[in-house]
Amino acid sequence: MPRLRLALGQTNPVVGDFEGNAAQILEAAHRAWERGADLLAVGECALSGYPIEDLASRPSFLAAAREAVAGLAKRLQDAGLGDLPVVVGHPDGPFEPRLLGTSNAPTAIAQNTASVLHHGHVKARYAKHHLPNYSVFDEYRVYIPGDELLVVRVRDVDVAVIICEDLWRDGGPVARVLETEAGLLLVINASPFERDKDEVRLPLVTRRALENRTAVAYVNLVGGQDDLVFDGDSVVVDGTGAILARAPQFREHVLVVDVDVAPAVDKELPESVTRVTLPVRARADRPEPPDVAVLPDDREQLWNALVLGLRDYVEKNRFPSVVLGLSGGIDSSVCAALAADALGAGRVHGISMPSRYSSEHSRSDADDLAARIGLHYSVEPILDLVLPIEEQLQLTGVAAENIQARIRGIILMAASNMHGHLVLTTGNKTELAVGYSTIYGDSAGGFAPIKDVPKTLVWELARWRNAAAEQRGETPPIPENSITKPPSAELRPGQVDQDTLPPYEVLDGILDAYITRALGRSDIVALGYDAETVERVTRLVDGAEWKRRQGAIGPKISGMAFGRDRRLPITYRPNL
Amino acid sequence: MPRLRLALGQTNPVVGDFEGNAAQILEAAHRAWERGADLLAVGECALSGYPIEDLASRPSFLAAAREAVAGLAKRLQDAGLGDLPVVVGHPDGPFEPRLLGTSNAPTAIAQNTASVLHHGHVKARYAKHHLPNYSVFDEYRVYIPGDELLVVRVRDVDVAVIICEDLWRDGGPVARVLETEAGLLLVINASPFERDKDEVRLPLVTRRALENRTAVAYVNLVGGQDDLVFDGDSVVVDGTGAILARAPQFREHVLVVDVDVAPAVDKELPESVTRVTLPVRARADRPEPPDVAVLPDDREQLWNALVLGLRDYVEKNRFPSVVLGLSGGIDSSVCAALAADALGAGRVHGISMPSRYSSEHSRSDADDLAARIGLHYSVEPILDLVLPIEEQLQLTGVAAENIQARIRGIILMAASNMHGHLVLTTGNKTELAVGYSTIYGDSAGGFAPIKDVPKTLVWELARWRNAAAEQRGETPPIPENSITKPPSAELRPGQVDQDTLPPYEVLDGILDAYITRALGRSDIVALGYDAETVERVTRLVDGAEWKRRQGAIGPKISGMAFGRDRRLPITYRPNL
Repeated sequence: MPRLRLALGQTNPVVGDFEGNAAQILEAAHRAWERGADLLAVGECALSGYPIEDLASRPSFLAAAREAVAGLAKRLQDAGLGDLPVVVGHPDGPFEPRLLGTSNAPTAIAQNTASVLHHGHVKARYAKHHLPNYSVFDEYRVYIPGDELLVVRVRDVDVAVIICEDLWRDGGPVARVLETEAGLLLVINASPFERDKDEVRLPLVTRRALENRTAVAYVNLVGGQDDLVFDGDSVVVDGTGAILARAPQFREHVLVVDVDVAPAVDKELPESVTRVTLPVRARADRPEPPDVAVLPDDREQLWNALVLGLRDYVEKNRFPSVVLGLSGGIDSSVCAALAADALGAGRVHGISMPSRYSSEHSRSDADDLAARIGLHYSVEPILDLVLPIEEQLQLTGVAAENIQARIRGIILMAASNMHGHLVLTTGNKTELAVGYSTIYGDSAGGFAPIKDVPKTLVWELARWRNAAAEQRGETPPIPENSITKPPSAELRPGQVDQDTLPPYEVLDGILDAYITRALGRSDIVALGYDAETVERVTRLVDGAEWKRRQGAIGPKISGMAFGRDRRLPITYRPNL
Repeated sequence: MPRLRLALGQTNPVVGDFEGNAAQILEAAHRAWERGADLLAVGECALSGYPIEDLASRPSFLAAAREAVAGLAKRLQDAGLGDLPVVVGHPDGPFEPRLLGTSNAPTAIAQNTASVLHHGHVKARYAKHHLPNYSVFDEYRVYIPGDELLVVRVRDVDVAVIICEDLWRDGGPVARVLETEAGLLLVINASPFERDKDEVRLPLVTRRALENRTAVAYVNLVGGQDDLVFDGDSVVVDGTGAILARAPQFREHVLVVDVDVAPAVDKELPESVTRVTLPVRARADRPEPPDVAVLPDDREQLWNALVLGLRDYVEKNRFPSVVLGLSGGIDSSVCAALAADALGAGRVHGISMPSRYSSEHSRSDADDLAARIGLHYSVEPILDLVLPIEEQLQLTGVAAENIQARIRGIILMAASNMHGHLVLTTGNKTELAVGYSTIYGDSAGGFAPIKDVPKTLVWELARWRNAAAEQRGETPPIPENSITKPPSAELRPGQVDQDTLPPYEVLDGILDAYITRALGRSDIVALGYDAETVERVTRLVDGAEWKRRQGAIGPKISGMAFGRDRRLPITYRPNL
């Protein structure tokens, strides 16, 4: 069988930064070329970034994308890499609108496209057939589906090119690829990380290989883009489904692998299939050594996803540094540790903001955390700022409690305004679910590192991170006391979360059933939870929708994150 | 030709309130019955409210909807109205999922359905064919498209039933209706108000009537649901496109009209068409008097849309009252006037919060406004609350300016916490576009009445509202000085908006081009705007996306509102 040397470039694009994204692809092409690759593929929309959302409906954006594709082809040629075919993802258009909306609504004028660049030109294109329009995806909104196939013949091997969702649908282009007798199925992807997704994605790749008896190459983007974290984890399997190569998660990488592929067959193809033959250079045949990354355990994957999501939000939006409130509690401690891992402690500023209700340990645990991590640390007592407001407005009860949280929000935002820090808000998924936070207070901030992490998982990750530090002989970043003490907002004397909420194990169980599994109340009670508790918790969740809508974005790590993943009305009278 | 007495019930549902929504439909049925109607139709999803968004993916929600449909049929029968066929919109399901997502993402398991209730039972169903997935609509995300037609034979007339978007698509079910030779095309709708939409919608209804030579009956919902305002404006035209009846905008109404319809033809129908024949009672034939509402002028329509959007958000979410900051400026004055029109001045609380930089007229104009409207009014000077913060944190520049806005936010939220008021945030569309507001400060609030109103239109509406008051011999609510003085945030001495922004006529022109028309920068410059100004304004718009994401919802009145209408990344490097 002919041997193809395939390179998969796991790049980390920024939406709209055609120049920078092209530079990454050019760099990957250099590395692929040096190692004798016959073909390079990069991810879905690697040239534009993904998702571009309604930018796909702007003719000027599409014009810039077209220019960038042509420019990249030329730059490859000028760099002496013209002989290397490069498969690159980008939006293409404008085409005739697919929909006639009822008004001046934007309509789909673009296609989600893979272009094959060779000898300084675009030699062929493939437009994605299946447009995901569930979860965080809105592709049916902004793209026109394609219906043709593309086969690229390189070194006597036929490579069929498809895009992401196309791989997932039975009976779609994957089935039609069979008819072309292509020897390699190449899928370019923008597939965001979700906990346990590798347990779905890899088996799918393997299944397609076995079904088609073809090798399958799967290349994914890497990096954070707003609330999504692309995990890379590009992989190549042979026609038996065996893994030939696998790129590491969460970092840029050029995976190069030799794949033995069934030779091209000169059968006649249906009209809907385009085949282009691209001559490539002779190759010095020293075989590529195997490059097979091993996935770390679940908690390490989650931690790495959170770190990369935070780092890329900061870097891509060009913040010099971050600031967060340190309460001595578990949430802010974990956020500080994530920030230090993402940016280095020198770019992390923590402010302890004790009130008259803060316990001694709040302050001492925050001190301890700051010392362990080595972040910039300051203390701003809030009493003198809170009292004049309480007195002038004659506040009592929750109104008075909230002032403390809002003064803290003001202090953090002032630090941001003075020094350019991004404010991190430290609420976890459980809090967001039940609305257990003060809007414009502790919820204030531009990015929420643990917004998709339920409270029970926050503790688990804290323990894992400390253990990982110990294994490396480093100081565990999170004070043991922050992990073990009962959680409290400390907005009134002696308050603890469990005064008003069920135990977090119970609460997270109910929330998983209601939010992730979208079960009704009686179904949740049937799982064994107390009916009154289920009623109370689900009411809290429904009633907090307006707060969540005004919340900061943060990295999605679950199959059902708050935000674009779960779209619900605010005005809603639930049926019990 | 047989004469059909048709009733269209313009109801105002709340999402999820099956009980209350059914009561509205029952009430409409009573009124239709009393007036001898042969058939009643209510709007799309009138039983569930619209849009239900991802609730369509919850089996428990769909089960409740099914129960509500059966329950309504029974209640109609029990009320002695069983002889009256009622066409009612609701989600139906669960059906086999349409999509196999890549994970545990919600998939479409529902259909957007019209059911025909008669003699205590559901006699037939129609599922919407065309699922809008642009603008604010996500129907392809949550619904499975239908592909069958329904014809209801009543009093020897064939009525073809379709749903909303089905009417808009050439070659869709409308074309197939022709084949059935139905005499009346009945369309049930949930069509939100947009400025000038009546100039598109009515001509479409007319065109379909002419194309098919059938009468067309168009029934729409009415009322606010989060950011959407359904305007009613239900209409019936005859086969020449002439208007036979038209319901008023923005209020509940049962429109009853006699329509002469071509008699039913007993031709054989394709398998995909269901025809049900429903016997109806004999009718006392005193003809219905004409009921043809006339649309008011553009500004009155806009004002009414804003009033209804605000009122329904308050009422449907059961707020007793609203509170807002009164600066003496045009935005807060217009919001106060809207709130008083929506709720009565007795439910509106205004707080003047002067700072050391507030001009004399800020206070006196706010006093004047409060007196004109008769709302609850109080004054909270902020200096003593701001100074301790400025001093402790040693703030200067923008950081110090923002404290004033954030203390005002705290005061309003404290009033909300103490008394249960909904906080209104008074930013206009122009401000939101360029980020000219303090996040967690003046942007704090649960509802933003004028968030889709550009600054120049705010002035226009203020002048219109005052003139309307004068015409009625009432006190104009908005002080003349608030309309004529140069706008200013008054966060530093002598500051006016035009220090840092182009004149509002220019700014709104550029924003319309960039946001509504989605033009690129060079296209906007080609319209005649200064290149540097275009560059600066569009950069401000892109850079304020993170703030808009955390903003309150407010009524959509344009073809391109911020929010679900315009979905863009925060992390974005624009290509200039």
